[in-house]
Amino acid sequence: AMRYSIFAGGKRIRPVLMMASYAIFSKNEEKILPFAAAIEMIHTYSLIHDDLPAMDNDDLRRGKPTNHKIFGEAKALLAGDALLTLAFETAANRSEIASGLTVRAIGELAKAAGYSGMVGGQFVDVDMEGKEKEIPILEYIHTHKTGELIRVAVFLGALLGNANNEKLKIINEYGKWLGITFQVVDDILDVVGDEKKMGKTLGKDAMQDKATYPAIYGLKKAQDMAKEYTDTALKLLAQLDENTEILENISKYLLSRVE
Amino acid sequence: AMRYSIFAGGKRIRPVLMMASYAIFSKNEEKILPFAAAIEMIHTYSLIHDDLPAMDNDDLRRGKPTNHKIFGEAKALLAGDALLTLAFETAANRSEIASGLTVRAIGELAKAAGYSGMVGGQFVDVDMEGKEKEIPILEYIHTHKTGELIRVAVFLGALLGNANNEKLKIINEYGKWLGITFQVVDDILDVVGDEKKMGKTLGKDAMQDKATYPAIYGLKKAQDMAKEYTDTALKLLAQLDENTEILENISKYLLSRVE
Repeated sequence: AMRYSIFAGGKRIRPVLMMASYAIFSKNEEKILPFAAAIEMIHTYSLIHDDLPAMDNDDLRRGKPTNHKIFGEAKALLAGDALLTLAFETAANRSEIASGLTVRAIGELAKAAGYSGMVGGQFVDVDMEGKEKEIPILEYIHTHKTGELIRVAVFLGALLGNANNEKLKIINEYGKWLGITFQVVDDILDVVGDEKKMGKTLGKDAMQDKATYPAIYGLKKAQDMAKEYTDTALKLLAQLDENTEILENISKYLLSRVE
Repeated sequence: AMRYSIFAGGKRIRPVLMMASYAIFSKNEEKILPFAAAIEMIHTYSLIHDDLPAMDNDDLRRGKPTNHKIFGEAKALLAGDALLTLAFETAANRSEIASGLTVRAIGELAKAAGYSGMVGGQFVDVDMEGKEKEIPILEYIHTHKTGELIRVAVFLGALLGNANNEKLKIINEYGKWLGITFQVVDDILDVVGDEKKMGKTLGKDAMQDKATYPAIYGLKKAQDMAKEYTDTALKLLAQLDENTEILENISKYLLSRVE
């Protein structure tokens, strides 16, 4: 059940971001593969649990039946639990990075994934279903539910790549803007995307009365926001002396999906 | 929702075991409080998820309504996810132990809690419901579902207390026998225990056709096994030169609940 969802065709965007960010500051990005695998496991567990009947009740994910549709609810729940746990087992037991940095990276990853990060965003999202959506709440949900794992992917790459504190701060800010752009783009694609191409049921946000960017600001304004956030992110990268081309291209590609 | 279950009156037996084991080899057991808290969070998350309708569908735990009865299924699921994640955040960010040992402890804890440990046992338990129970399968379920977290509590105490490899091995073996005794005792109490005293619905194993020790061996034989396993555990402790009185007393107390 764990394997089914891990190998169901995800884009590996979080590991890619982590390794791209690492490569800006250090060589041999294969050294951080345990952390790159860990963040993908955390992302995948969150999808399995999100799809459960008690949460979004989704039948389709990445073009395939969701985990609980194949294995049943109990095993899907446990597969998610096991992937989350394996993320930390892998980061700890397979790390090729100095142990001081490994401990810090595990702590940062857990913080971004937990109650003050991703799970916190999901919790408020659940809590706000069917209630009136105020903008600070919407922003909290998005910066946490999707944003934090994206941010920490970029941040951990730089941290493990031994970026200094000043550069870490810039990369972290970039990660924040990239993360929020991700959510805006995801929300827009749920309205205008191609279901076959994306391999998941679309239009569910509106049906479930979710607090999305298009729902609050309208489609055109949401598209403008995606552009504006991408500009802000690119300006941050421009502050670094290092070659940041891969991250720039990822930001531009992301925006191109909704332009 | 996290707080509700953490402060619902658990006996803190895993943290107690960890600190008792640490105290055999080192002073100032408050130094490992972050790990002691982490293992209790992992235990608590596993109870929240276990109680969900998709799993055991329990209404009562420690004398109080289960998490999902109060907060709903979605929030109970997320509270469990968040506690599991917070366990690793706490172990990493709050550790006062040298980072090399911290990384090793996090890896051991995750391994014991994950697919090759606790979750693995739960998975096989779910898988075997309603099927014929063969003894090796029963043993796999019990040594993993309950045993691994007990074993690793004792093991981590000694590891963080800087026990040498020879002593670590003995303590680890003790932890294994203590863990399996826990499950045998728990199974027996589900048959003969006092519902009010234990604060949970009893007799559910039989109702759900679970593979328990009394179900397979009968009550008398299961009681004999609890005694035999306790003897084996105590003999291991006797191999250590250190004062192991607290662990001895815990083993004896455990047995006394079903004698």
